[in-house]
Amino acid sequence: MRSLSTILTSSTSVGHHFFSRLSLRRPYAHSLKTQHSRSMAAANEESLRRGLAEKQSAIEAQGNAVRALKAAGAPKPEIDFAIESLSKLKLQKASVEKELQAVVSGSGGDGSLNREAFRQAVVNTLERRLFYIPSFKIYRGVAGLYDYGPPGCAVKSNVLAFWRQHFVLEENMLEVDCPCVTPELVLKASGHVDKFTDLMVKDEKTGTCYRADHLLKDFCNEKLQKDLSISTEKAAELRHVLAVLDDLSAEELGAKIKEYGITAPDTKNPLSDPYPFNLMFQTSIGPSGLTPGYMRPETAQGIFVNFKDLYYYNGNKLPFAAAQIGQAFRNEISPRQGLLRVREFTLAEIEHFVDPEDKSHSKYSEVAKLEFLMFPREEQMSGQSAKRTVLGEAVSKGIVNNETLGYFIGRVYLFLTCLGIDKERLRFRQHLANEMAHYAADCWDAEIECSYGWIECVGIADRSAYDLRAHTEKSGVPLVAHEKFSEPREVEKLVIAPVKKELGLAFKGNQKNVVEALEAMDEKEAMEMKATLESKGEVEFYVCTLGKNVCIKKNMVSISKEKKKEHQRVFTPSVIEPSFGVGRIIYCLYEHSFYTRPSKAGDEQLNVFRFPPLVAPIKCTVFPLVQNHQYEEVAKVISKSLTVAGISHKIDITGTSIGKRYARTDELGVPFAVTVDSTSSVTIRERDSKDQIRVNVDEAASVVKAVTDGLRTWQDVWSTYPHHSSESADD
Amino acid sequence: MRSLSTILTSSTSVGHHFFSRLSLRRPYAHSLKTQHSRSMAAANEESLRRGLAEKQSAIEAQGNAVRALKAAGAPKPEIDFAIESLSKLKLQKASVEKELQAVVSGSGGDGSLNREAFRQAVVNTLERRLFYIPSFKIYRGVAGLYDYGPPGCAVKSNVLAFWRQHFVLEENMLEVDCPCVTPELVLKASGHVDKFTDLMVKDEKTGTCYRADHLLKDFCNEKLQKDLSISTEKAAELRHVLAVLDDLSAEELGAKIKEYGITAPDTKNPLSDPYPFNLMFQTSIGPSGLTPGYMRPETAQGIFVNFKDLYYYNGNKLPFAAAQIGQAFRNEISPRQGLLRVREFTLAEIEHFVDPEDKSHSKYSEVAKLEFLMFPREEQMSGQSAKRTVLGEAVSKGIVNNETLGYFIGRVYLFLTCLGIDKERLRFRQHLANEMAHYAADCWDAEIECSYGWIECVGIADRSAYDLRAHTEKSGVPLVAHEKFSEPREVEKLVIAPVKKELGLAFKGNQKNVVEALEAMDEKEAMEMKATLESKGEVEFYVCTLGKNVCIKKNMVSISKEKKKEHQRVFTPSVIEPSFGVGRIIYCLYEHSFYTRPSKAGDEQLNVFRFPPLVAPIKCTVFPLVQNHQYEEVAKVISKSLTVAGISHKIDITGTSIGKRYARTDELGVPFAVTVDSTSSVTIRERDSKDQIRVNVDEAASVVKAVTDGLRTWQDVWSTYPHHSSESADD
Repeated sequence: MRSLSTILTSSTSVGHHFFSRLSLRRPYAHSLKTQHSRSMAAANEESLRRGLAEKQSAIEAQGNAVRALKAAGAPKPEIDFAIESLSKLKLQKASVEKELQAVVSGSGGDGSLNREAFRQAVVNTLERRLFYIPSFKIYRGVAGLYDYGPPGCAVKSNVLAFWRQHFVLEENMLEVDCPCVTPELVLKASGHVDKFTDLMVKDEKTGTCYRADHLLKDFCNEKLQKDLSISTEKAAELRHVLAVLDDLSAEELGAKIKEYGITAPDTKNPLSDPYPFNLMFQTSIGPSGLTPGYMRPETAQGIFVNFKDLYYYNGNKLPFAAAQIGQAFRNEISPRQGLLRVREFTLAEIEHFVDPEDKSHSKYSEVAKLEFLMFPREEQMSGQSAKRTVLGEAVSKGIVNNETLGYFIGRVYLFLTCLGIDKERLRFRQHLANEMAHYAADCWDAEIECSYGWIECVGIADRSAYDLRAHTEKSGVPLVAHEKFSEPREVEKLVIAPVKKELGLAFKGNQKNVVEALEAMDEKEAMEMKATLESKGEVEFYVCTLGKNVCIKKNMVSISKEKKKEHQRVFTPSVIEPSFGVGRIIYCLYEHSFYTRPSKAGDEQLNVFRFPPLVAPIKCTVFPLVQNHQYEEVAKVISKSLTVAGISHKIDITGTSIGKRYARTDELGVPFAVTVDSTSSVTIRERDSKDQIRVNVDEAASVVKAVTDGLRTWQDVWSTYPHHSSESADD
Repeated sequence: MRSLSTILTSSTSVGHHFFSRLSLRRPYAHSLKTQHSRSMAAANEESLRRGLAEKQSAIEAQGNAVRALKAAGAPKPEIDFAIESLSKLKLQKASVEKELQAVVSGSGGDGSLNREAFRQAVVNTLERRLFYIPSFKIYRGVAGLYDYGPPGCAVKSNVLAFWRQHFVLEENMLEVDCPCVTPELVLKASGHVDKFTDLMVKDEKTGTCYRADHLLKDFCNEKLQKDLSISTEKAAELRHVLAVLDDLSAEELGAKIKEYGITAPDTKNPLSDPYPFNLMFQTSIGPSGLTPGYMRPETAQGIFVNFKDLYYYNGNKLPFAAAQIGQAFRNEISPRQGLLRVREFTLAEIEHFVDPEDKSHSKYSEVAKLEFLMFPREEQMSGQSAKRTVLGEAVSKGIVNNETLGYFIGRVYLFLTCLGIDKERLRFRQHLANEMAHYAADCWDAEIECSYGWIECVGIADRSAYDLRAHTEKSGVPLVAHEKFSEPREVEKLVIAPVKKELGLAFKGNQKNVVEALEAMDEKEAMEMKATLESKGEVEFYVCTLGKNVCIKKNMVSISKEKKKEHQRVFTPSVIEPSFGVGRIIYCLYEHSFYTRPSKAGDEQLNVFRFPPLVAPIKCTVFPLVQNHQYEEVAKVISKSLTVAGISHKIDITGTSIGKRYARTDELGVPFAVTVDSTSSVTIRERDSKDQIRVNVDEAASVVKAVTDGLRTWQDVWSTYPHHSSESADD
């Protein structure tokens, strides 16, 4: 009989993509995609480098020629002609150099500069208006920790409320809320204690720590972008290193760092060899110091350990999904990329449990016709780019592994685009074989393009039975599902019965290893062994825990198939896991929503966030046009109605000019403004068009509510109510 | 000139009530109130103990008398009479003993037993229906950590949404969201690193840890309740120890533990002396190990360190409030009391910043007429109990320190009672002088009575300028507000100018201490010194940092008042802080909402949670009366309309009897059930009355929405629609 325990422990070759689910922490996006989507650019760069080297040789040759002519006292016109040729070659070289410079510094020309400037404009606005604040700023802050200030906090709370509506309520998911403090035992079982690491190097003199792969990556990028003199071969090598960066072992990384002579960026001191650093914040539970614990690096484990109760709660029926929103913690070695790589962040995770033999989804047809950018493995490998694809076709062609996975891809697409993520800068990228955990059936990332490149914001993975098996193994509590048969079924069961007496005689102290290896054989292996034993009487058999072959004789094991009546099927469910990096989604949303437009006087650029009402931190402002008691009273009445209607809003009764007040709230992304310019009727202004309608005072709140809740469109109310064109104001 | 630094550092005598704001972690409720509200009971107990001792002496005397009579060969009738008297005395003693037993085991009779049984019934239901789950149960759990399962998670999310509506939106508060990981610097400034401790003792052999005050408390309670033979004096002493428990120093606690011979409860081994254990979970930020950090023990500090930005965001205007909902962590020594004392919990905190010279509140009049149970300091000290009080009267009489504090007390009352907390088991208890931090102006706790006694669930404190000053001091960033005068004002300023040369000659190495102490004098002290110096030429002056008096001569310091023109007033705002222990409120809500009623057959007790729709985890269920395709289709149509209306609900199409289905959902506190018993109309059942109305299929969702959102009452729809009386079902 094969034991579950042997199966699990025999599959330990997990590699360092063990945590593809956790890949929110690794910008695969960067190195991997850099390689593929730039393959055309790379070919171009290669020919330019070659061209540059050719021009250089030609210049040297021509220079020699000029010198030779001069030395030989050749006639002036001949010398002049040779010099003119030399000048031409130099100009040509300069031109190639410029072209190469443009190519290596990204997307041709000053694209990367524009991106930097755009990001700076967004980030300045976000910080100035307190969308976020570096945490503990008055104490000079801590890298990788940020506060959400008032508008940021409102945006986050709107995004989470919509997530709950769109996923939890719509799908009747079982939401849970587990603690962040987690005992070591649980994270030992999940693999985090042993494997949740990044490779780190230390400045050997100051002790400052760096991520080893970051240093190597920076070195390669710097060399490729700034050093135009490197050979085509060298450039190709550096590009290759970038492509395989995530696959390098500690030894390989260390060797490259030595080979390239990379030193500590701040001091130029020598660096230690790379060694793994666990990214979990460690702590101790209780006063004794005897119960080590960690701050959870993800919320998923809290769901897995509760599987049994949740399955029961769901009436012992599959499929069902559990969900959790909560803080997760990763003690990054040296956080970079601002809000995208932080040490504490909000995750929203779904674990959808299904019968591995039936991964259909009852609501799949509702998303099958959606069409959006998909980037399957094959296209990435062959250097193509993401293409508009009908989701249903990707599923039916088997590009997406199963319907449930496809269903969630579709739902994630709808979720992100409803929030205001630009469809053209959103793609679903399938993990390459080397990115996926060995047990995963398929995995797709929702990637959003922003000024940092394509960023993984949601991971959608079919993780098979891995997690439930791991906790079953360590806790001894079977996390399984049952399918009761309507009538008993006859099934054929493989029975492997090692004959311990014979094995003991033959293998002595190694007997246990041999027995376990025999019991761990799958059906195919076992039936082949049976056939060989019957024909030849013995067989060579590899025992992995001994690391060698042994000779198994016919009398040492009996292999057979037995028929049994079974009343139910007991199995470990597969889990399909959409995992949302909430902070990353929000940051990308900021970039996608941001634009500038000139002020009326044309003397400055005004910032606007075009948030949909769903996301906007405040839905509406109420302004008396001028400071005036009557107008203020009307404003208060409207404010009260808005409060009753549950519309978050703000009154601004300062004497600031109406144009300035509009500009201030455009910068917060407030979609509507009610301006009180009489006691009977008021105007409502829409942020992006700056169009205004006129409505009666007692209608104002309900109109705002209708457009805010999406019951009516702005176009609709625009065609219903009289238009207002302001002579004064900003418009 | 007095320096801010000296003022702050000179006020270090904070005692161990330093963290009255943090007193969520200390059940003052227990020892303190036990003392006062039981003072009548205590008097009774004392007279019973005295009576018992008297009876005991009488029995001994009579026993001797009987023996003497027998020895003297007295006549039988005389002996019989004496024996009869003895028996009577014994019966009387037994009766007194019984009475005493009843008194000491709490509220007379088996009250405490009933409370235990009630709590067990609630907790069983909560655990069985997954309102909560001990975290990491399959790994045998961790004391003090709990998961919210699906219904618990929904209740929590409803409570938080209502909190946001009732406080943040209604008051336009600035909500922020700061990380849990906090660098040591910040918590050093707030005082937590040095003072956030509990006193702990260790089993000297096994190393098991206990809270010192808990052991002493258990010993005293046990002795008082189980040992009827202790003398009146001893009983009084034990009661006194319980009363002052929270004020005992480590030495005093240790001495009592030694005196009473208290040993480790599990092993009876001797105990170590008590020593402070810091309750914060410690960790390390970044890979170097050089930046110690903690998981925040409260959310408030995140707001204080952002004061400057938030004040600016609010247009540099006071008053304003900031709010935060988030996780907080306290590494309790040995958590008890189930869901009430946990190691990780959700706090919702408000910091309302006001001008210390104007603590009025613009919306105060909206709550001034509210009337509820208040328990001011005086009533507690004089052994009375909480009384129904009109809030406005408590404020105008100065019992509540100021309007803003009063306003929040009123708002908290409305918040808790809207959630379903029983008005009769909710009181506002003022902190006694010894409970309050030295800097606090006033502090009231909202206490809710549950099976564990009166539990502090919300603390509402006027903390004056303490927190902002502490962070100003440590960070060097002034956290102050400005009041611009419309025209410059002439003010008199105290100027203390120590003459360093003379002081140096007189005090040498101690000069600095003397200078600081002089500069730290307040106006009264300084003017008194000035007068004495002028009349006598010298004065005795106590320097606390030297711990002795020094002699100050006239030439050593000049003290004067100078007139200055000032254009603005710069001051540190006061902060009024309502702080909500969300998990505690929810637990009390469970107890207040729980009741049982007999099943129709009368053979079992059914559990019901009478949650208001606002709180209920699911608002409505939809049941086809019998399994039937047509009914199921109708149920699906209604379900879809409910989803559109945003009403969380559940369909149950199992063939289970309708009565069982009602019972199951009553146990989850679902307020309404739609039962499909025809294709044209359906019934809607209200949970507590079990009354049913009949409505058309297409009206069902809107009726449910109206009663759920509180737009209509059940009484209202009950009088509008035809009634339905079910013959089958449970009703």
